[in-house]
Amino acid sequence: MNETLKTLMERRSCRSYKSDPVPAEILDQILEAGTFAATGMGKQSPIMIAVTDQKVRDRLSRMNADVMGANNDPFYGAPTVIVVLADKAVPTYLYDGSLVMGNLMNAAHSLGIASCWIHRAKEEFASEEGKAILKELGIEGDYEGIGHCILGYAAQENKTAAPRKDHYIYRI
Amino acid sequence: MNETLKTLMERRSCRSYKSDPVPAEILDQILEAGTFAATGMGKQSPIMIAVTDQKVRDRLSRMNADVMGANNDPFYGAPTVIVVLADKAVPTYLYDGSLVMGNLMNAAHSLGIASCWIHRAKEEFASEEGKAILKELGIEGDYEGIGHCILGYAAQENKTAAPRKDHYIYRI
Repeated sequence: MNETLKTLMERRSCRSYKSDPVPAEILDQILEAGTFAATGMGKQSPIMIAVTDQKVRDRLSRMNADVMGANNDPFYGAPTVIVVLADKAVPTYLYDGSLVMGNLMNAAHSLGIASCWIHRAKEEFASEEGKAILKELGIEGDYEGIGHCILGYAAQENKTAAPRKDHYIYRI
Repeated sequence: MNETLKTLMERRSCRSYKSDPVPAEILDQILEAGTFAATGMGKQSPIMIAVTDQKVRDRLSRMNADVMGANNDPFYGAPTVIVVLADKAVPTYLYDGSLVMGNLMNAAHSLGIASCWIHRAKEEFASEEGKAILKELGIEGDYEGIGHCILGYAAQENKTAAPRKDHYIYRI
């Protein structure tokens, strides 16, 4: 099995992180891999917001918990978060943004960084508070939150993957 | 740069294929990589239909062209097609299915197989003809088409990637 297949098959969603930040040069490689995800008609509809500032990270965590009506940290202690949003003016935006998320998670695993997709980015950035964050960053246009790729060093070893379901694959 | 990053960054969408089929043992590895994509709550909402039968492949091509009102082959001559669908009963189905598509395309590239995401699977499998195909395969439940991953050997060399857009990445 080649190294890429190994990465794709051994990546797991990690739900427990050390507080050590992701080194900047590693984060940059993960982000760059995200920019090369396929997008409908090559329109590159997604954008990424790399959050390393602890206060902003904690604010997003709180906003995310609010969507659920929860009080915990939905980011499982991960120090670094990449928010992916995509431009709703492009019909394939949701698929495009998801492919960026996939590249981020797979790139991270190849570099020894644990990750997990955390949802509710849609609700977070549809809120007034979320819109204000985008505005502060100079992001204009109708962007919908696709997901948070949380990143960090795993605090526990990867669990073995759950068995793949029966009938995942059909053939004609 | 490690091999996985190289794969993620050098994969291109291919729009011209030779007629040679994808060898079965390579197709199996691509499909297996697809099953290991992350899914919301680990629910594994997607399914894949690997189409190698020429008649079925041509039928899907015609259905796909019909959605556009076109007469060409929307699969660009690719001999093999993996259709990804996902179970609408799972809230994250569309994101989940997209991640499977991403793993398929990246796995393919790592194995020397060209690929492209072809859309309109949603419309195709919402039609009576599409539903009948699912029924013949014994697929029950409310599955929505996510995409076609067309696969084959490239008839032309990969183009260089278009420049990534400005402001793909923001930082806080």
